[in-house]
Amino acid sequence: MNLTLKNLNKIAVLGTGNVGQAIAKALSSKNYNVTIGTRDVSQTMAKDKPDNMGNLPISIMLKENTNINLSTFQEAIVDADLIVLAVGGSNVFSVLDLAGPIQAETVVIDITNPLDFSKGFPPSLFTDSTESLAEKIQSKYPHIKLVKSLNTMANSIMLTPDVLKDQGSNFICGNDSGAKEIVKELFVTFGWDKTSIIDLGDLSGSRGMEMILPLWIKIFQSILILK
Amino acid sequence: MNLTLKNLNKIAVLGTGNVGQAIAKALSSKNYNVTIGTRDVSQTMAKDKPDNMGNLPISIMLKENTNINLSTFQEAIVDADLIVLAVGGSNVFSVLDLAGPIQAETVVIDITNPLDFSKGFPPSLFTDSTESLAEKIQSKYPHIKLVKSLNTMANSIMLTPDVLKDQGSNFICGNDSGAKEIVKELFVTFGWDKTSIIDLGDLSGSRGMEMILPLWIKIFQSILILK
Repeated sequence: MNLTLKNLNKIAVLGTGNVGQAIAKALSSKNYNVTIGTRDVSQTMAKDKPDNMGNLPISIMLKENTNINLSTFQEAIVDADLIVLAVGGSNVFSVLDLAGPIQAETVVIDITNPLDFSKGFPPSLFTDSTESLAEKIQSKYPHIKLVKSLNTMANSIMLTPDVLKDQGSNFICGNDSGAKEIVKELFVTFGWDKTSIIDLGDLSGSRGMEMILPLWIKIFQSILILK
Repeated sequence: MNLTLKNLNKIAVLGTGNVGQAIAKALSSKNYNVTIGTRDVSQTMAKDKPDNMGNLPISIMLKENTNINLSTFQEAIVDADLIVLAVGGSNVFSVLDLAGPIQAETVVIDITNPLDFSKGFPPSLFTDSTESLAEKIQSKYPHIKLVKSLNTMANSIMLTPDVLKDQGSNFICGNDSGAKEIVKELFVTFGWDKTSIIDLGDLSGSRGMEMILPLWIKIFQSILILK
């Protein structure tokens, strides 16, 4: 069955970090049936302290949002109408391996960034300008409908653009036009102006979207230094 | 002698394309002594037709701006107080080879982008996120004071920001703070608001500045398609 906004119900959000938490909370607030996927549920729930970036553990968020489920990646994607990739870029393929076979034609929103922290901060990218991480994912999983979006903005904005006075640009790209249209419609229900959603065409548009991160991180650093 | 805005007089603009022409015209309009550098003056002047991008040849611009000089790269940089690199990224090192020794401590504004058109349009980058073209130039010529700026915007804006209702961000970075300050002051005399000039710190900030091009080109393409 083709995904439409009307038959969209079960959503799997893969990733328990800030991005996964923000997306899950926003989707759940509109009564979607949200399951967050993680590697090991009991290990994830055992974390009760902020990480070294000051981010709160998901166990606290889940206590306040009892309608959001937590399961393994594999369980999360069962019968999911929509999957959201919200893991660190370097974990994408191990996470998809653990999740197992994704149903053909499933729409997958890819929020990941190919950040390489192995040489410290600021990170470099582990991809180059000839093939993005999104293109690598689509190439390995050609039967899914990958839509790249939201990776260029803070998680506090992604599905809550009303916090902004000026929405700026929400870039989107993907090889399947129908999948992109559903995702755009979904964004509009969360408050994105249609004119703020900039369609960059096929998935090659994700190269530039992923390459904005090094600039973003430098701007962020320069603001922190100024403060 | 340390460069100041007061003693700034002779400026060499290396590059005869749209960027070089726009920069030279703007600088000349404020009565700086501007010399544009090129590979071969007579060959450059012999061109009297637009290139395949529709850009006008420099011979036409020079007829209307008789106070702007044209010379070889080598002649252009003689006694230059300031050098502006406005050539295609893939030509930077051959141009600097032709220009010959640059006086130590010379401030050089680098507007280049490491665009690789060898596989067609849209271009990829011939650098990666661990070393920018600006860093490569500074590394090969450690005695110059390289300042990266203006590469993220259209040449019609670079030194004429008043054409914009909202100036947006003019990023700048470089390893020499004094050189950056002079360049910022210069930008302000051309109408840039101080608050629009975003200092990203040392030259590693240029990685992100150069990586914005693939996104920019995709946005440009999507606008052209819409029109």
